[in-house]
Amino acid sequence: MTARQAQFTGVIPPVVTPLTAEGEIDQASLERLVAFLLEGGVSGLFALGSSSETAYLTEDQRSRVLEIIVGANAGQVPVIAGAIETTTNRVIERGGISKKLGADAVVATAPFYTRTHDTEIDRHFRLIADAVDLPLFAYDVPVCVHSKLSTELVLKLAADGVLAGIKDSSGDDVGFRRLTLGAAPLPGFSVLTGHEVVVDAMLLGDADGAVPGLANVDPHGYTRLVNAAADADWATAKAEQDRLARLFEMVFVAKGTSGTAAGLGAFKTALMLRGIIATNVMSEPMLPLGGTETAAIAELLDTAGLLGTAVPR
Amino acid sequence: MTARQAQFTGVIPPVVTPLTAEGEIDQASLERLVAFLLEGGVSGLFALGSSSETAYLTEDQRSRVLEIIVGANAGQVPVIAGAIETTTNRVIERGGISKKLGADAVVATAPFYTRTHDTEIDRHFRLIADAVDLPLFAYDVPVCVHSKLSTELVLKLAADGVLAGIKDSSGDDVGFRRLTLGAAPLPGFSVLTGHEVVVDAMLLGDADGAVPGLANVDPHGYTRLVNAAADADWATAKAEQDRLARLFEMVFVAKGTSGTAAGLGAFKTALMLRGIIATNVMSEPMLPLGGTETAAIAELLDTAGLLGTAVPR
Amino acid sequence: MTARQAQFTGVIPPVVTPLTAEGEIDQASLERLVAFLLEGGVSGLFALGSSSETAYLTEDQRSRVLEIIVGANAGQVPVIAGAIETTTNRVIERGGISKKLGADAVVATAPFYTRTHDTEIDRHFRLIADAVDLPLFAYDVPVCVHSKLSTELVLKLAADGVLAGIKDSSGDDVGFRRLTLGAAPLPGFSVLTGHEVVVDAMLLGDADGAVPGLANVDPHGYTRLVNAAADADWATAKAEQDRLARLFEMVFVAKGTSGTAAGLGAFKTALMLRGIIATNVMSEPMLPLGGTETAAIAELLDTAGLLGTAVPR
Amino acid sequence: MTARQAQFTGVIPPVVTPLTAEGEIDQASLERLVAFLLEGGVSGLFALGSSSETAYLTEDQRSRVLEIIVGANAGQVPVIAGAIETTTNRVIERGGISKKLGADAVVATAPFYTRTHDTEIDRHFRLIADAVDLPLFAYDVPVCVHSKLSTELVLKLAADGVLAGIKDSSGDDVGFRRLTLGAAPLPGFSVLTGHEVVVDAMLLGDADGAVPGLANVDPHGYTRLVNAAADADWATAKAEQDRLARLFEMVFVAKGTSGTAAGLGAFKTALMLRGIIATNVMSEPMLPLGGTETAAIAELLDTAGLLGTAVPR
Repeated sequence: MTARQAQFTGVIPPVVTPLTAEGEIDQASLERLVAFLLEGGVSGLFALGSSSETAYLTEDQRSRVLEIIVGANAGQVPVIAGAIETTTNRVIERGGISKKLGADAVVATAPFYTRTHDTEIDRHFRLIADAVDLPLFAYDVPVCVHSKLSTELVLKLAADGVLAGIKDSSGDDVGFRRLTLGAAPLPGFSVLTGHEVVVDAMLLGDADGAVPGLANVDPHGYTRLVNAAADADWATAKAEQDRLARLFEMVFVAKGTSGTAAGLGAFKTALMLRGIIATNVMSEPMLPLGGTETAAIAELLDTAGLLGTAVPR
Repeated sequence: MTARQAQFTGVIPPVVTPLTAEGEIDQASLERLVAFLLEGGVSGLFALGSSSETAYLTEDQRSRVLEIIVGANAGQVPVIAGAIETTTNRVIERGGISKKLGADAVVATAPFYTRTHDTEIDRHFRLIADAVDLPLFAYDVPVCVHSKLSTELVLKLAADGVLAGIKDSSGDDVGFRRLTLGAAPLPGFSVLTGHEVVVDAMLLGDADGAVPGLANVDPHGYTRLVNAAADADWATAKAEQDRLARLFEMVFVAKGTSGTAAGLGAFKTALMLRGIIATNVMSEPMLPLGGTETAAIAELLDTAGLLGTAVPR
Repeated sequence: MTARQAQFTGVIPPVVTPLTAEGEIDQASLERLVAFLLEGGVSGLFALGSSSETAYLTEDQRSRVLEIIVGANAGQVPVIAGAIETTTNRVIERGGISKKLGADAVVATAPFYTRTHDTEIDRHFRLIADAVDLPLFAYDVPVCVHSKLSTELVLKLAADGVLAGIKDSSGDDVGFRRLTLGAAPLPGFSVLTGHEVVVDAMLLGDADGAVPGLANVDPHGYTRLVNAAADADWATAKAEQDRLARLFEMVFVAKGTSGTAAGLGAFKTALMLRGIIATNVMSEPMLPLGGTETAAIAELLDTAGLLGTAVPR
Repeated sequence: MTARQAQFTGVIPPVVTPLTAEGEIDQASLERLVAFLLEGGVSGLFALGSSSETAYLTEDQRSRVLEIIVGANAGQVPVIAGAIETTTNRVIERGGISKKLGADAVVATAPFYTRTHDTEIDRHFRLIADAVDLPLFAYDVPVCVHSKLSTELVLKLAADGVLAGIKDSSGDDVGFRRLTLGAAPLPGFSVLTGHEVVVDAMLLGDADGAVPGLANVDPHGYTRLVNAAADADWATAKAEQDRLARLFEMVFVAKGTSGTAAGLGAFKTALMLRGIIATNVMSEPMLPLGGTETAAIAELLDTAGLLGTAVPR
């Protein structure tokens, strides 16, 4: 990893949101999940990201989820809270609530739903940073936002102290390397990858950490990966990544459904199978994975050595 | 127009949201705008659509805008309220508020930000229709939602009584004709076009009405257009449309900004020039159009015969 | 239609390319098809367009097809020849061959496969117009070329005498209306729509003509439609268009295949059923439609009154 | 790199096509370039790829370029020839010519310009492999072809012996890792990355080699990178990659032009500055980079230690 002293490094899982059979926030399961992740060695928690089904939660539910995570975490690692809202004033409102509820940083995307422009994205992040008294992460996720943050803009906002870091889920490997190279002289700026299966590669290329949804299911594995990379033991990091990449195939198990339902549904199903959360219920209008998919995911967990192992409760 | 008895027909402008210099909802301007539109002969009001900067308003502001419009309208025409939210439960929550505030129908898009699937979109609209006790319109706006509603799905939802109508801003002329053809046997289902410059053409092809943003600026013109079409006076309809299409060039005046800022900024500037609203202020992070753009828009208004004419106050 | 004196107007079908069972160009069928189209009243023939499977033909086959069409047409109507090639020099080479083989105009797209830019598209069309001694049409077909021709650029090239016309298959109804409005003062410039189901609407909006693939199957119907529009008999034009739009549903019959195979496969199958061409064989790697699809298309032909009617041979 | 015995490994630059001031193929420059690349330690030559301006060359020019490269190479390394054509029969025709001209393998994309489908892409590659008696590479380049090859399809075609390898320029890092993992049990199948700035990372993730356009400019650097990775000396590989990633910034120097003109224009300008090729002329309708851009590229070359160094002639 880099010579910079990024504040947010290592494994920072985007915490999934367990639901009861009735579709309500399942507090007990969420608390178990946070404990499991902390025990697994994660160095931060990303609440209310895409993997948390944020887009499916009401404003009250969003607050409730953050409250539970902050409570269960009890200050052990930084909590980064998504403020995934369409535009500036909405992000600022949500960011203020996050601050009150105890978040240590907030994450915002470029404006979405509406069409936008680089000059407006620039202004958007500056206004948020001014208004919300917490470190601000940009979240680059074109599959959701339908625009890509430009490397030049991100680096300028970083240099101006507007951004504390970026979570890059763009899948643009060239852009990512340009970011880490460009951020080299920016002390404290964190470049985090959101991609589950190339964490070893991105760490080799100077990523500061990762926000992999799959780390909900196997935080210990990602911690080993990141530790090996920190020791420049690339053979170990790569072997661990290969195991996790095979496990990640769970997100391709379900067919005839959205990628979100298939992917998050798989993580929830795996967590249910590992005994961490109570159900694999998804937010409406998504349906939970069924029996066939659950069996296939159990097999992948088994291959990865994750079934039958004692799990902290 | 069609032999069907669609409930929602004619000109239904998506009401823009006037702001004060400080960026607050400008009640007096909004009330003047509603009066102007009603005087202009519109047959409905679409509140909280994309053209209303819905994506930029906080939840409280959304409620406030709807309240003002419903109040100013005082039951003269139906008020259709956008419930533009990312997913099902959020739409339902907003739809319930709209009902309480006096809306006559609600409008929802497919899920956005998150990835989705036809089976989930189907379930999404059915759950909303079940939960919100108002006629439900689908809003097909791929430039915002980044998925296109399938013609087959819309017609199925219409046939099943889930949808009362659709506002089509997809720009897909083939899909639109397939909709009006397919909807022919569905009494009461409204097919509305969201496109400003082809209203004559779409009415020829059996559209029930239009939701043109430009109708904020010239409701009288659109009313004449729709009336001519109802009389099968296509030459008059076409001439009116040509005049309006030339006026619509105002949305292409601003450069180096988002399409939203350029387009809605132009409408607001024109309304300011016509004396209906007080400022052309836009929601953050958009900036209002400047002097050069304002002069160009004044010229287009003049060419269209809309400057210097007495406007109701 | 417009007051301008566009050179190319009316129905100009993109002639499909009949193949033998072995996948070779079927000269006899192609000659029958040309005779059928001329008898159906078309005012031009568009050879080697997307609907001609141009992208699937070798250079020699392209020349052969054009030769047959020019021969069968024998000067009765203008023949417009596609020069659908990735970039400038390739278009120029193909354009020169088209001229030699007797084409009356050539059609080119923006550069494709490679990334391009407005300045390069501008230069591209100017270089082609300089090098090829025939009227030049631009072909705007984003579904193939993956860029959209800008209205401003097209109108500039038209004003400068570079372009003689445009075939618009972009599906962008707003852009199309801006084109016909902008072209109003350009004598001789032809704006042709490539969309099958909105020809009435586009003619109302001043299109000069249409290039509908479905006109292969029912040239008489499209001729009636265009004639009615020329007489400002919009009710008749609209009724004819509705019948044709219902017939057009044939392109949605096949599932689990490409849109090209489904659409062109349907046209070929319908022409086979009408007795004009010998087989519905498609170019590799596409497969012809099967029995179930053929039966469904026969039914659509029957509903449209096109089965059992005597067809010129 | 992998335990598999891939046939095609290491650095395989996509050879740029030098042009004379008049825009003709510059044989002397192309021969010098091949000699430079071979001296730089490359393990193969990719002729007629996107970086070779294939989309801009006439059929005769394509043959001429391949002839010159095969001649200059004189059997020292394998020559892989692009058969970048829209559809199956055209690829087969071009593949046959490539075989005759001495290519050692051919490369084809999925069908482009036309819409396609997985079943047709599958059939496309099988028909080519049957007809062309050379190892067949798939080229996954969505930015040109506008469809992405599915991982499942590629692995199936690999397992069936249809494909000898893939050049992946998709920028989809997750897909790439799934490919190398899935190809692990497929002896001889080559997975090559087309991305210049993540070669170290992709090699860590079991890529067999790279096809970086920038390797035209600095083949020695890429050879050192690949050799270090082969020795599992990841610190050296990463340092070399960082230097090359900084050099790659040359493709972002030009503004107001296409990405192709900016990127390939930069490579040609750099090669001109290094004394390998005579001009930086680009194919029509692209313009060569000008003086300001050339100066900026010279600076980047200098920073990378590539100016003033003796270059083999």
